[in-house]
Amino acid sequence: MDSSPTAVNYELVFDAHAHNTSGFRSEITVYRRGREVEEFDLPCDEGAIVGGGGTAPWPLCYFASGFTGCLVTHLRMFADRLKIDIGEISVNTRCNWKARQSTDATYDAMPIAFTMEVDFSGSASNDEKRRVVDVARKGCFVEQSLKPEILNYKLKLDGEWVDL
Amino acid sequence: MDSSPTAVNYELVFDAHAHNTSGFRSEITVYRRGREVEEFDLPCDEGAIVGGGGTAPWPLCYFASGFTGCLVTHLRMFADRLKIDIGEISVNTRCNWKARQSTDATYDAMPIAFTMEVDFSGSASNDEKRRVVDVARKGCFVEQSLKPEILNYKLKLDGEWVDL
Repeated sequence: MDSSPTAVNYELVFDAHAHNTSGFRSEITVYRRGREVEEFDLPCDEGAIVGGGGTAPWPLCYFASGFTGCLVTHLRMFADRLKIDIGEISVNTRCNWKARQSTDATYDAMPIAFTMEVDFSGSASNDEKRRVVDVARKGCFVEQSLKPEILNYKLKLDGEWVDL
Repeated sequence: MDSSPTAVNYELVFDAHAHNTSGFRSEITVYRRGREVEEFDLPCDEGAIVGGGGTAPWPLCYFASGFTGCLVTHLRMFADRLKIDIGEISVNTRCNWKARQSTDATYDAMPIAFTMEVDFSGSASNDEKRRVVDVARKGCFVEQSLKPEILNYKLKLDGEWVDL
């Protein structure tokens, strides 16, 4: 997928093919495009409490995992490249939305806030920890696709949560 | 999680807890909060071609499934409530990003475009099909969290793809 003039600039393509016959279960296969295509079956469903079959994760579970995983991957990748000892990484993400009735049959969805709490176990200084979070956020494909005003980050420094 | 004055307005909360000790595999558990908490283990990894272990889906696979699944779920839900016969639903989503080198060790991520192609098999009129896509997009929690300028939708009407 390298399509840009230099090797360090590149494109990523992920395709999702979904099919739904009835109800809330959808068969979804995701393809990572590139020289070697990889595919994963990631079906979704809703839980019984909203009329689903509970046969697969909710779509928003996949979203929350994908967002969190993309950030953690970049924390690890960039800390390794920068030779900053962050040790183990723990991230807790809360994704909070609201729905407001629009018509008798439909509602409008709105994000309230997504909050990520980042904690490192390693010996990095506070400045180094801040730097790793800063560059990981810039490298996170999901974060850069989201409305920036809904995002909040907290970093544990000297045992205290600090807003970034 | 009903926290608003009327029953038709409600909040959704999904929490993701991630842990990474080294490399690109992260253990991630996602919790749907509410009266009945549900949890799903959704670990991620990168593929071998970028130095991962290939032991689990890429984070962006989860993202693509979650985005697509949330839209399809709302197409089904609102078509059923509006009594519009959309038949079977097929959605193909392409998520396209680029990375541009920032420092020797890091890059900046940027979305290029996310394109969703929606096709229904049912007897709904073209206006009805357009209406279902319109209300589903407004009800889709993921779409409403994304930067609107990167989103493109196409709907198949009378055998032709039409830009929405």
